[in-house]
Amino acid sequence: MLIVMHRNATSKQISAVITAVEKMGLQASSIPGSERTAIGVLGNKGYVDDLSIRDLSGVKDVIHVSKPYKMVSRDFHPRPTIIKIGQVEIGEGKSPVVIAGPCAVESEHQIIRTARAVKSAGAEMLRGGAFKPRTGPYTFQGLKEEGLKLLAMAKKETGLPIVSEVMASENVALVAGYVDVLQIGARNMQNFDLLREVGRAGKPVFLKRGLSATIEEFLAAAEYILAEGNSQVILCERGIRTYETATRNTLDLSVVPIIKELSHLPIVVDPSHATGKRSLVPPMAKAALVAGAHGVMIEVHPDPEKALSDGPQSLTIPGFEKLMEEIRQIKKFLGH
Amino acid sequence: MLIVMHRNATSKQISAVITAVEKMGLQASSIPGSERTAIGVLGNKGYVDDLSIRDLSGVKDVIHVSKPYKMVSRDFHPRPTIIKIGQVEIGEGKSPVVIAGPCAVESEHQIIRTARAVKSAGAEMLRGGAFKPRTGPYTFQGLKEEGLKLLAMAKKETGLPIVSEVMASENVALVAGYVDVLQIGARNMQNFDLLREVGRAGKPVFLKRGLSATIEEFLAAAEYILAEGNSQVILCERGIRTYETATRNTLDLSVVPIIKELSHLPIVVDPSHATGKRSLVPPMAKAALVAGAHGVMIEVHPDPEKALSDGPQSLTIPGFEKLMEEIRQIKKFLGH
Amino acid sequence: MLIVMHRNATSKQISAVITAVEKMGLQASSIPGSERTAIGVLGNKGYVDDLSIRDLSGVKDVIHVSKPYKMVSRDFHPRPTIIKIGQVEIGEGKSPVVIAGPCAVESEHQIIRTARAVKSAGAEMLRGGAFKPRTGPYTFQGLKEEGLKLLAMAKKETGLPIVSEVMASENVALVAGYVDVLQIGARNMQNFDLLREVGRAGKPVFLKRGLSATIEEFLAAAEYILAEGNSQVILCERGIRTYETATRNTLDLSVVPIIKELSHLPIVVDPSHATGKRSLVPPMAKAALVAGAHGVMIEVHPDPEKALSDGPQSLTIPGFEKLMEEIRQIKKFLGH
Amino acid sequence: MLIVMHRNATSKQISAVITAVEKMGLQASSIPGSERTAIGVLGNKGYVDDLSIRDLSGVKDVIHVSKPYKMVSRDFHPRPTIIKIGQVEIGEGKSPVVIAGPCAVESEHQIIRTARAVKSAGAEMLRGGAFKPRTGPYTFQGLKEEGLKLLAMAKKETGLPIVSEVMASENVALVAGYVDVLQIGARNMQNFDLLREVGRAGKPVFLKRGLSATIEEFLAAAEYILAEGNSQVILCERGIRTYETATRNTLDLSVVPIIKELSHLPIVVDPSHATGKRSLVPPMAKAALVAGAHGVMIEVHPDPEKALSDGPQSLTIPGFEKLMEEIRQIKKFLGH
Repeated sequence: MLIVMHRNATSKQISAVITAVEKMGLQASSIPGSERTAIGVLGNKGYVDDLSIRDLSGVKDVIHVSKPYKMVSRDFHPRPTIIKIGQVEIGEGKSPVVIAGPCAVESEHQIIRTARAVKSAGAEMLRGGAFKPRTGPYTFQGLKEEGLKLLAMAKKETGLPIVSEVMASENVALVAGYVDVLQIGARNMQNFDLLREVGRAGKPVFLKRGLSATIEEFLAAAEYILAEGNSQVILCERGIRTYETATRNTLDLSVVPIIKELSHLPIVVDPSHATGKRSLVPPMAKAALVAGAHGVMIEVHPDPEKALSDGPQSLTIPGFEKLMEEIRQIKKFLGH
Repeated sequence: MLIVMHRNATSKQISAVITAVEKMGLQASSIPGSERTAIGVLGNKGYVDDLSIRDLSGVKDVIHVSKPYKMVSRDFHPRPTIIKIGQVEIGEGKSPVVIAGPCAVESEHQIIRTARAVKSAGAEMLRGGAFKPRTGPYTFQGLKEEGLKLLAMAKKETGLPIVSEVMASENVALVAGYVDVLQIGARNMQNFDLLREVGRAGKPVFLKRGLSATIEEFLAAAEYILAEGNSQVILCERGIRTYETATRNTLDLSVVPIIKELSHLPIVVDPSHATGKRSLVPPMAKAALVAGAHGVMIEVHPDPEKALSDGPQSLTIPGFEKLMEEIRQIKKFLGH
Repeated sequence: MLIVMHRNATSKQISAVITAVEKMGLQASSIPGSERTAIGVLGNKGYVDDLSIRDLSGVKDVIHVSKPYKMVSRDFHPRPTIIKIGQVEIGEGKSPVVIAGPCAVESEHQIIRTARAVKSAGAEMLRGGAFKPRTGPYTFQGLKEEGLKLLAMAKKETGLPIVSEVMASENVALVAGYVDVLQIGARNMQNFDLLREVGRAGKPVFLKRGLSATIEEFLAAAEYILAEGNSQVILCERGIRTYETATRNTLDLSVVPIIKELSHLPIVVDPSHATGKRSLVPPMAKAALVAGAHGVMIEVHPDPEKALSDGPQSLTIPGFEKLMEEIRQIKKFLGH
Repeated sequence: MLIVMHRNATSKQISAVITAVEKMGLQASSIPGSERTAIGVLGNKGYVDDLSIRDLSGVKDVIHVSKPYKMVSRDFHPRPTIIKIGQVEIGEGKSPVVIAGPCAVESEHQIIRTARAVKSAGAEMLRGGAFKPRTGPYTFQGLKEEGLKLLAMAKKETGLPIVSEVMASENVALVAGYVDVLQIGARNMQNFDLLREVGRAGKPVFLKRGLSATIEEFLAAAEYILAEGNSQVILCERGIRTYETATRNTLDLSVVPIIKELSHLPIVVDPSHATGKRSLVPPMAKAALVAGAHGVMIEVHPDPEKALSDGPQSLTIPGFEKLMEEIRQIKKFLGH
């Protein structure tokens, strides 16, 4: 339930509404906007009788949520959210951002070499997995804290902010201590406790769409993070699961303009996981930017043949340099 | 089975091989290439013993087909196929082509008005359905021959070549008498008798990908047309069926670079049917061109609210004019 | 549009309504029921103004169709349709029917041997493909008319009625001359001209669900056949296309009770094409019967290793005999 | 990697191999079988050079795992696993088990009333959610510990063992303190840290298949639990996500015989979540048992219209009693 206050409601009126909600045993979360304040009501078990609320002074409307999200929605936050990570800004109206790096951090040599190369080619952020979700328990699961330390070293070396995945609530503080952006992987998109935990971590979150998540579920997952007070969420389309086997997943690029209609949050595209095939990454990265994506995330490995994971979809360093040259032209074409 | 002849095989040797194949009760189809001739063997029921063929003079290799297509493949026809329709050329290296028009031909006024408008905005071909495949028998099924006549009238008026769907073998000659390109709709992609019939019609074919066709099945469907001697096939991605309901179908744009790797045939994208939503058509059309599509097919209607079919996904005329302005810039950016 | 007549409407009133509809340039199809007559209106292009119809005497209601089917629906035909093929009856309340035979007719020896074996094991109908839809043009496409003759021979030998696929409108008369039930394959479920043609052929039709057809589209495809005056349609679930690759398709068994709620037509299950794996056929066949299917269609081959198509999913003759023994117990358990 | 020891390998030889593996910085997990011992090697980052292992005495073979699971596989554990929960036994050869109860625990009255009713109708275990995964943060999320206490009360009242979901690693101990079986929900099937945590909890685990998980991924998820030393895992098919919207999910019943071929673990079917529709639950429950399922999980609510979640798919108490009567007959038919 969402309580929309009158434009000129006083802070006293707002407090009174919050108190009333809390008396009903519910949680009230104030959402101040540029024009008016709204109050999100959480914790209700089923339908809430709103009569006692509607009559309070300053209340303009009570909206029973039909969509499973609201703070994420453009309706309640019409202006685009711009997320600042160091010098980098991601969001509508800003120059699209390129995040690059290996699937997994494997060694100091590998990550430092890659970081330098992608920085020099023009990437603005570094990706690299220290905790790796793997289908089975017997494959490489990431270097864990050692990997985080190597990422921090790469940041020190290049200045690139770091995005890295966190897979478990108990590791959020650990990962947040090393990285700039906490990534939630596709398999954890509906790990609701983890979403709440990163919502409380005070760091931007990079939320990947689940393998078979609808757009509504994707936005509702983001809502879990915003509901904890963290609106620094970057959405990422990374391909969905379909019957087609020619690609690893099916890149659903229409998501880009749809998300921009429905939400104020930035949307980034990961063509590497979506296609699973090196040769498809450049055309899909460029198509994503022209479709309006606020950034792309690209896997790069100095020696893809020997990569411990996702080698076939990683660009080589020269391949990435070539793509960056093309992306620079696309950005110019798009007016950035 | 495919018999590859030596580079310097004589026409006598080629004839001898064809005769030998036919003696086995099979059909031989000569595929002359710029470097060498290959002979496709059709009609075999199961595995064919190739010993009697391998020993004939001039035979370089006998390839047992594992993929369900061969003439469609770049392996056997490395140079891209360019299809000429009047002044228009579609294919690798040519400027991308815009095909526009209403979903269905509804009246003289509607089709002439639309044809003039899209021509004036820069479209190079006119689309319009006279025979309409509809889920149920009680909805508008198209104006049929009357619609074809209106399309011919629109061509006379504007000079735009016409693409229109043919749904049944018995109507191929009729439709071919009025239009420049025969369209095979998604639901008929595996209507093999119809594919063979358009393969014999001597006109270019516009083949739409089936709703749940794999890329391999898509190319194998095209092979049915080529196997009848018609290599003038334009492939068209129009969205696939997935669990996602935010769009009518899921546009699988990765198909564009994949098809260009696997086949020499041109690949065009239809963002109107793929997304089913007007606002998504322009970003997806532009993304398709940057991904490398050889053209886009766009639904345009002078009054989408009153369209007898597919109104919600049709651009208005001003909407199309705006898109064409953007496409002109994209083409320039792409060097055309 | 459907015009529902009063219970005591006279045949004169019914004729007057039909005449009025035809004057509007539309087609009227009388649907006599046990309680009242309904008149289906076809051929309308968009919405029809029903004022002139509503006022005619004897008219009870005018229903604008929202579902793309109506004659197929239980709402307008509450009693189940029983289809008689020789001695065999298929439909609600009748003992479930077993249809068995090879994927494709390959030779006299093969089809006669299989026909005798399945008859002796208790099958009530024989299946066998003479026209085979194949992904690519270079694989065995069936023995065509020769195959039909062999099926007729097998019928003469065993008395089993024959089900066989027809793929093209121009072959409907030919196939109907040899077989008892015309099968429409999954790839042709939305080949609307073919549906209309078998609707006019005067023979029962066995309609397979398309690879990615929704239940609504499946029933709407059947409506095309009923709209031509043929209500002898047997529906068949044969697996749908999903992301899962452990089975050839995903058997959607819930369709059985859903179809029985929505329609009066019989529903049969084909576990052979659905699973694509011999060992899964018996459990799924038995589950289908317990879920309420009116029959099962089972592929049987005397020597599956050498089958020209679908060997891996065909039961051997001893395997089929064992399954029939179990099916007999299931039937007894179900009270047949 | 899996090291297979000779049938007559001594425990000394086995220890030596384990020591050698551990010296390589890897983890060795001994898997004693009835015929021979195998040693699973975990923790390797990429390919492990096995030369130093192959030469040790007692080693028969070193298998590099291609499937992402091994302990779950029938190859290494041919005899079916029977899981005992109080008096109840689940697994191959045992009478199929019925687990019933509401989607969510809502109140003492609701859970006690339902528990008594399902017990009296013949259910052997009670289900009920205390922690509820919900798409959005503003819907009822379960009574949490209060719900667990009510479940414990229901157990005391009826003697029925309890299955309830745990969503977060940090709650595993809490939930395990109240319930008999820890359920992992579909959305958490690849929450690998949670899988590991329940693997260490010393209680049977009820693992639901993910919405778009392949069978291989499903078994690999179970492997995470077994790899922690807990082989008490019950697998549960609950429908997969497809394009079909007539049902909530598509029940993939073929999974039952496939899992029985591939694994020794019991497989249970949940027709309530799979279909989402009350009327489809009984036919699908019965079909599941005939397909070979080791049990069914059925949602039952005393007043489904007022249920806080999943009302439309819950059976009423009389509906459940009727189904149990039919299940008793099915069990008898199946020889239990």
